[in-house]
Amino acid sequence: MNDKVTLEELQLPQDLKKLTIAQCTALCKEIRNILISTVSKNGGHLASNLGSVELTMALHRNFNSPEDKIVWDVGHQAYTHKILTGRLDRFSTLRQEDGISGFPKPEESEHDTFISGHSSTSVSVACGIAEAMKLQGRDNYAVAVIGDGAMTGGMFYEAMNNCGRDHKNNLIVILNDNNMSISKSVGSLSKYLTSLRNTEKYVNTKRAVERGLGKIPIVGNSVARGIKNVKDSVKSNILEQSTMFEDMGFIYLGPVNGHSLSELEEVLHVAKSYHQPVFIHVKTVKGKGYAPAEQNPGEYHGISKFDIATGNPEIAPADSYSTVFGKELVRLADKDEKICAITAAMKYGTGLQFFHFKYPNRFFDVGIAEQHAVTFAGGLASMGMIPVFAVYSTFIQRAYDQLVHDVAIGKLHVVLGVDRAGIVGEDGETHQGLLDVPMLTSIPNTVIYSPSCYSEMKMCMKRAIYDEKGLAAVRYPRGSEKVDFSSFHLTTEHLYIREDGSDTLIITYGRLYNEAFNAQKKLRDSGLKCDILKLTRIYPLDDDLGTEISKYKRIVFFEESMGEGSISEKVGEILAELSYCGDYSRVTAEGFVKQASVVSCLEKLGLTSDKMSEYIISRSKENGKA
Amino acid sequence: MNDKVTLEELQLPQDLKKLTIAQCTALCKEIRNILISTVSKNGGHLASNLGSVELTMALHRNFNSPEDKIVWDVGHQAYTHKILTGRLDRFSTLRQEDGISGFPKPEESEHDTFISGHSSTSVSVACGIAEAMKLQGRDNYAVAVIGDGAMTGGMFYEAMNNCGRDHKNNLIVILNDNNMSISKSVGSLSKYLTSLRNTEKYVNTKRAVERGLGKIPIVGNSVARGIKNVKDSVKSNILEQSTMFEDMGFIYLGPVNGHSLSELEEVLHVAKSYHQPVFIHVKTVKGKGYAPAEQNPGEYHGISKFDIATGNPEIAPADSYSTVFGKELVRLADKDEKICAITAAMKYGTGLQFFHFKYPNRFFDVGIAEQHAVTFAGGLASMGMIPVFAVYSTFIQRAYDQLVHDVAIGKLHVVLGVDRAGIVGEDGETHQGLLDVPMLTSIPNTVIYSPSCYSEMKMCMKRAIYDEKGLAAVRYPRGSEKVDFSSFHLTTEHLYIREDGSDTLIITYGRLYNEAFNAQKKLRDSGLKCDILKLTRIYPLDDDLGTEISKYKRIVFFEESMGEGSISEKVGEILAELSYCGDYSRVTAEGFVKQASVVSCLEKLGLTSDKMSEYIISRSKENGKA
Repeated sequence: MNDKVTLEELQLPQDLKKLTIAQCTALCKEIRNILISTVSKNGGHLASNLGSVELTMALHRNFNSPEDKIVWDVGHQAYTHKILTGRLDRFSTLRQEDGISGFPKPEESEHDTFISGHSSTSVSVACGIAEAMKLQGRDNYAVAVIGDGAMTGGMFYEAMNNCGRDHKNNLIVILNDNNMSISKSVGSLSKYLTSLRNTEKYVNTKRAVERGLGKIPIVGNSVARGIKNVKDSVKSNILEQSTMFEDMGFIYLGPVNGHSLSELEEVLHVAKSYHQPVFIHVKTVKGKGYAPAEQNPGEYHGISKFDIATGNPEIAPADSYSTVFGKELVRLADKDEKICAITAAMKYGTGLQFFHFKYPNRFFDVGIAEQHAVTFAGGLASMGMIPVFAVYSTFIQRAYDQLVHDVAIGKLHVVLGVDRAGIVGEDGETHQGLLDVPMLTSIPNTVIYSPSCYSEMKMCMKRAIYDEKGLAAVRYPRGSEKVDFSSFHLTTEHLYIREDGSDTLIITYGRLYNEAFNAQKKLRDSGLKCDILKLTRIYPLDDDLGTEISKYKRIVFFEESMGEGSISEKVGEILAELSYCGDYSRVTAEGFVKQASVVSCLEKLGLTSDKMSEYIISRSKENGKA
Repeated sequence: MNDKVTLEELQLPQDLKKLTIAQCTALCKEIRNILISTVSKNGGHLASNLGSVELTMALHRNFNSPEDKIVWDVGHQAYTHKILTGRLDRFSTLRQEDGISGFPKPEESEHDTFISGHSSTSVSVACGIAEAMKLQGRDNYAVAVIGDGAMTGGMFYEAMNNCGRDHKNNLIVILNDNNMSISKSVGSLSKYLTSLRNTEKYVNTKRAVERGLGKIPIVGNSVARGIKNVKDSVKSNILEQSTMFEDMGFIYLGPVNGHSLSELEEVLHVAKSYHQPVFIHVKTVKGKGYAPAEQNPGEYHGISKFDIATGNPEIAPADSYSTVFGKELVRLADKDEKICAITAAMKYGTGLQFFHFKYPNRFFDVGIAEQHAVTFAGGLASMGMIPVFAVYSTFIQRAYDQLVHDVAIGKLHVVLGVDRAGIVGEDGETHQGLLDVPMLTSIPNTVIYSPSCYSEMKMCMKRAIYDEKGLAAVRYPRGSEKVDFSSFHLTTEHLYIREDGSDTLIITYGRLYNEAFNAQKKLRDSGLKCDILKLTRIYPLDDDLGTEISKYKRIVFFEESMGEGSISEKVGEILAELSYCGDYSRVTAEGFVKQASVVSCLEKLGLTSDKMSEYIISRSKENGKA
């Protein structure tokens, strides 16, 4: 084949191997257009995917997926992979309900080796796969593709330490170095990589040697071995310094231009011939091929719908819980030099850019390193500072032990801003914030606030920062306030919203309060009176709360959390201890929640006002009480 | 002072600075005798403490604790520090109830900067302290002392990446490299450190330069600066290769002999003069000064009472849950090539030495890297292997997110052997295994078994390995089986042990079943009949369990777990949903449990047979029902 081909006419991924570099280059252009067009409609991760088009193409030309296993770290660089493995026709359903996932998902395709929504896992996974292949006598490859941002997570290093040791497997780790991470890479590693990026010596020499000896050899034969030996000695003469990755027992190849298919193919050929752990350093440009994204890759990391021509977002970003949190923290820090802000590579996501701008000395972006973030906060707190760590609910899971061991046992005062708590929607199972409540309540001496609007969040922040002593969390959802309750219903404790003569009680907290409030109205219209107990400090519960609520004949707890270990479970247990004989039930998440819009997810869980009122009506009929 | 001094006559730590090297050397000998004598009586960590005597002495001579903050990583190298900071007179109470802790504990002394029972936290803590000092305008030092084993944990790397970046603080990281970790160091890092250990060039050159220029200079003056410059250029000429630690933005000094006070003092002097992050590589011998420990440092890492003359343990180690687990796993692996065993630097502690011996290819010691261990297991499982990760309850806390994200969401079949589940005793708050139940039950699709004797554990292992599909845990306590129930009462589900006509039900699981069994007898003797529900698969509970138990008038759940999120909380909630009007109560841990013997801890929690029967009798009287 030498003519121009289109994706549609190919059997993918196998046909890729039959194409010329020129044909593939044209396909890369087609892919970029699909990426831009789809993300402009569905939202998603754009910049990192634009950066990995050629790399993905080269991988599928040089490996045999699914026998060879490609493991994408934080799968938001895997869109091209999806397009090249039989999901072109469904790509327009990206991140939509029942559509294809924004992350690799084995149940979606045999080419998706492993789930990956959280960072820095790929080398561990690929290491497990490579060891399994060895034990099973299979001669396939396990390839991990990791970004430079994900390299800041400790798991990467744990895995490298383990994998490099074993000198007889088919593990290849590819660093997709776009010198960016989610916003700007932080830490010494970033500097170190930059110094490596600027070292062209090795690759150039390699090429010179290879040019001297003729064409790049077929993988694994004796000619290849011979060239490697030459290369190795050339390398040791030219690069007086070994890389950190070599110190960890890997063969280091690179840096290579990640947008040159021919350079990529060369280095993959060589890497495959070693049969021992190889580390390939690939330089890419985040946002490559779409000017607005190249210019502002941070803004096009995760993005909502936008206009392709201008690059402008369809809806101008309004205030959100995150930005309100960030701005309020600046306001508090204006008056208190002890307040420090910490983020794990989510400065913009958590609204801390304002803090960074105003108080750079008290702002710490630690990279994708939640464990370090928490223990570092413990160190600050031990010196009398007030560290506030703003972190997504799903990512604080990474620091459970540090919260227990480095904060709670020592009774240190560390404040968590738990962002994206509850349903997050389109990012699906790996990103839902449904475990922070079970996780945090299991840690002794922890206090959790869950406000229902911006004003309440500000009150809660002040309480958490100044009135609490130990670990204090304020959890709030993704997105914006729906109703401003600031003229009434504000509290940092709990509050009853009573209907005269009701014997049914709805308990809830957080943004569900708005749903409950509307359900109360709906029920009133159908002649059923309900009181609401709105919790704001959701944990610990007041000692007399159980006695207070046990006078109701029926209690229903609606909770935007995994049910196991949640507040509604604790309330049930308290009622049992009080020998409560009424009708207690609860509506929560009971398993991992798949991708869909937030509203759709909440509806499926039975946590919208309509579903709430329906539930209470049916419950009343069923039990014959009202 | 030039005469021989004894610890008792000194004001510590301040007097140390007035002594000569010879006097300090004599004190080191005295300290070693105290360490050996105390640990021989109380048990504890011996080998690592014997290795850090001179280092600790040098630290207290060169820094001003508590203004300067010394942070001990995994505090089991801090015994000398305790002796040198005013706790000599109480040192005989080491690890005993109300005695001094085996780990640093701020509430015990102002010289104990931070709690540390888990590994790899010290650089994060010291980094937080150094940043706080800078913000507060204090010119003190933050010194982290970390072992080479702890360096295998990802947090170390996350912290190094963050600390090295900042070039204007007083952070000093000291690697106490005994080339051992808990058993033998694993991974590439270990090899890398060995290569550094054998590089004497730098230190020798440094000394030559310093000898040439005269005595080691006072910290921070211009002479010191000048010498540093000479040193730096000498170094760059002689060491053609930078270390990994320099790649991460630290000044690297070393390696130095950790048993030479003069070498240590020299390097600390130089380190203090930089006022930017310094990494000092100190070589020590684990077990130094006590022949049996030097010869077998692994066995003297954590040790029970022993005879000083022979080094023999007072009681020959019998079988324990750990060794029985390890041996049974070998037996299962004999028949199944898919079974792999994983440990995070606890080969002996978890009884996996038998597996390692017989199946080295299927055995993986990943170092102190629980996160990697779990995700690596996920990788193995994705290829159809059956990975079994044996890990202490308190350390699996490190891998919460990996269990959720890399195992449970993908429904991968990974088996956990949760060792040291429940009370562990003398190691105190940081090591109690009280959070695995809340943690694991919050993860959808997880199954947990908690056997009551060895035979039952073996049955549970088989179930977990062959009958379960996703994440399956078998949890068992520290120590030995007390009663062999193999002639009766064995189950992998649940079992009622009934007294005729009882309306009181005790629910329990694990080793508490034996206590409940004895409580049942005691109550029978006092005329009070109790049934027992012994759970073995403690999670998920059978659907009809609630209905079954709700016929009892009184239900008491005794549980060796933190109460929040535990099984007894779930049972309470189930009863509330069933409108159970009887008397439900539970006895659990409600906060961090301090050091004491296991029996004493259980007694204080109300979880011994005596306390159980007393509780039920008083509950009967109180509520007027029997």
